[in-house]
Amino acid sequence: MSKIFIGVDLGATYIKVGCFDSNLKLLAKTSAPTQAEKEPDVIIDNIARVVVQCVTKADFSMTNVPAIGLGCPGPAKYKKGIIEAAPNLPTLNNVPIRQILSDRLGAKTIVFENDANVACLGEFTAGAGKGVEDMVFFTLGTGIGSGIIINGKLLTGPAGNAAELGHTIIYPNGRLCTCGQKGCAEAYASAANTAKRATDAIEAGEKTSLKKTLVEKGRITCKDVYDHSKAGDELAKKITDETAETLAILCVNVLHTTEPRLIVFAGGMIAAGDILLSRIKYFFDKHIWNLKEESVKICFAALGEDAGIIGAAALAKANFK
Amino acid sequence: MSKIFIGVDLGATYIKVGCFDSNLKLLAKTSAPTQAEKEPDVIIDNIARVVVQCVTKADFSMTNVPAIGLGCPGPAKYKKGIIEAAPNLPTLNNVPIRQILSDRLGAKTIVFENDANVACLGEFTAGAGKGVEDMVFFTLGTGIGSGIIINGKLLTGPAGNAAELGHTIIYPNGRLCTCGQKGCAEAYASAANTAKRATDAIEAGEKTSLKKTLVEKGRITCKDVYDHSKAGDELAKKITDETAETLAILCVNVLHTTEPRLIVFAGGMIAAGDILLSRIKYFFDKHIWNLKEESVKICFAALGEDAGIIGAAALAKANFK
Repeated sequence: MSKIFIGVDLGATYIKVGCFDSNLKLLAKTSAPTQAEKEPDVIIDNIARVVVQCVTKADFSMTNVPAIGLGCPGPAKYKKGIIEAAPNLPTLNNVPIRQILSDRLGAKTIVFENDANVACLGEFTAGAGKGVEDMVFFTLGTGIGSGIIINGKLLTGPAGNAAELGHTIIYPNGRLCTCGQKGCAEAYASAANTAKRATDAIEAGEKTSLKKTLVEKGRITCKDVYDHSKAGDELAKKITDETAETLAILCVNVLHTTEPRLIVFAGGMIAAGDILLSRIKYFFDKHIWNLKEESVKICFAALGEDAGIIGAAALAKANFK
Repeated sequence: MSKIFIGVDLGATYIKVGCFDSNLKLLAKTSAPTQAEKEPDVIIDNIARVVVQCVTKADFSMTNVPAIGLGCPGPAKYKKGIIEAAPNLPTLNNVPIRQILSDRLGAKTIVFENDANVACLGEFTAGAGKGVEDMVFFTLGTGIGSGIIINGKLLTGPAGNAAELGHTIIYPNGRLCTCGQKGCAEAYASAANTAKRATDAIEAGEKTSLKKTLVEKGRITCKDVYDHSKAGDELAKKITDETAETLAILCVNVLHTTEPRLIVFAGGMIAAGDILLSRIKYFFDKHIWNLKEESVKICFAALGEDAGIIGAAALAKANFK
């Protein structure tokens, strides 16, 4: 009987599901709103329904599915299959989601992993990291998620909470992060915090073309900041450069930690394009040591929003083996 | 025939050699000055001589030695067995030390590794890290060396230059490090730079009991700073607290990277005792997130100066297997 592998990317807004053959070729994709505000039962039923829809869409049945990969926001008790403190899925915290979902789907093997780790594995398996053995992955959205591949394997840590690089401290005693620390990379350089720093600067009275946007729309997005930066606004340029510099220092620090050959940036913010990537590279060159030449490649992700479902399916397949 | 394993710790001042049985029990120890200012041939002859002396002292012959572990300062081309840019062993840079030493000793297998990695492996195998699977090791001397154990294995990185944590940037655009970067942990919190920051403060006119020491001895050591801190000098307390805070932030950052269960500090500076360890723990608690409780243990090394030779012998043994 043909084996197919399911990858589930559980986000605060959408549940995305992909159905893959044993070579991780995509057979079908489905998605549905998460309804994160609802009770755990509703959310888990949503996941189960979208999984079954996806398998049906691919012209298979659940008996063809030996394992399902599930990417979720952390921190979590990964070995126990329980989300611990995900701010955007509050009702699911401390619910044994892996067990309940497995029961709903007929006692399937479910491999549970951090969403950024899963996306990292997706890019490693089928995207920008193909052929690389040591890479680091960052996804720039509301927060900064990350994943680390060492010698061809995902680094999870003994309790599954390794690779929380967005919460490494870059500016001691700096901006307060949602995690409670001060000066985290995430507090400066996520998409949301890039927009937030611009908003804060306007409220502090700085002159910028973004002010009109704030007044008209009531809020500023990261895209607004990059658009105004490209149009030449000085404050927007300063804010986007601070984001790039923070990310570059993150790259320097992780290079000196796990020695990746490749650093991949993903997430909504990479839509900014070269103004982001070229400045990260510029600040990396500015901050990196001169003891020896470094050849690490810094690039954007290749898979877009599919990285999560591909990585989750790859995890399911690896676990089934 | 009994197998014995040799561990060599090549420092800028001394060559230390240990001879171990197959359970890594120490049979004999020898050492000699490195003569780092001499030509490579002289230094390598010194190493070979001390190795043979050690084997003889243990009542064995070189035919009992299947492999030798050699810990050297980096950066290096570890796979090629060549030190690349060690500031304190200038004549050895770009010399194929592993090959030459192997030839001198009768074509022995020599496993070549970074000195801090080797000391980390020593503490992991037989010291503070016994029974732990995931640890991080820092040695506080002239610089800050470090090593990372993940899932029971030393993390070397694809070219052997992982775990250069002393050169992660904690204070962007801060003090200039010998590596060329600004704001490295090492530029603040090594033993040498703790002393240097005190000296700089005195030269900038700050009031302190250390000034008398500087005038009388012509220089200040890290031990002086800790002694004056213990005696209540305000500047010395500020300097030692800055060192502890920097090391604590390093701990936070590496916890969020590889998720160690244990962080071990070694090197001359740990002679400062509780004034160092308790303040590192204090600042760790101050800087760590509140998303979830962390149970990482922070402690001092257990093996003292023997960590290097034990780790090098462990490496030789692992490689021989």
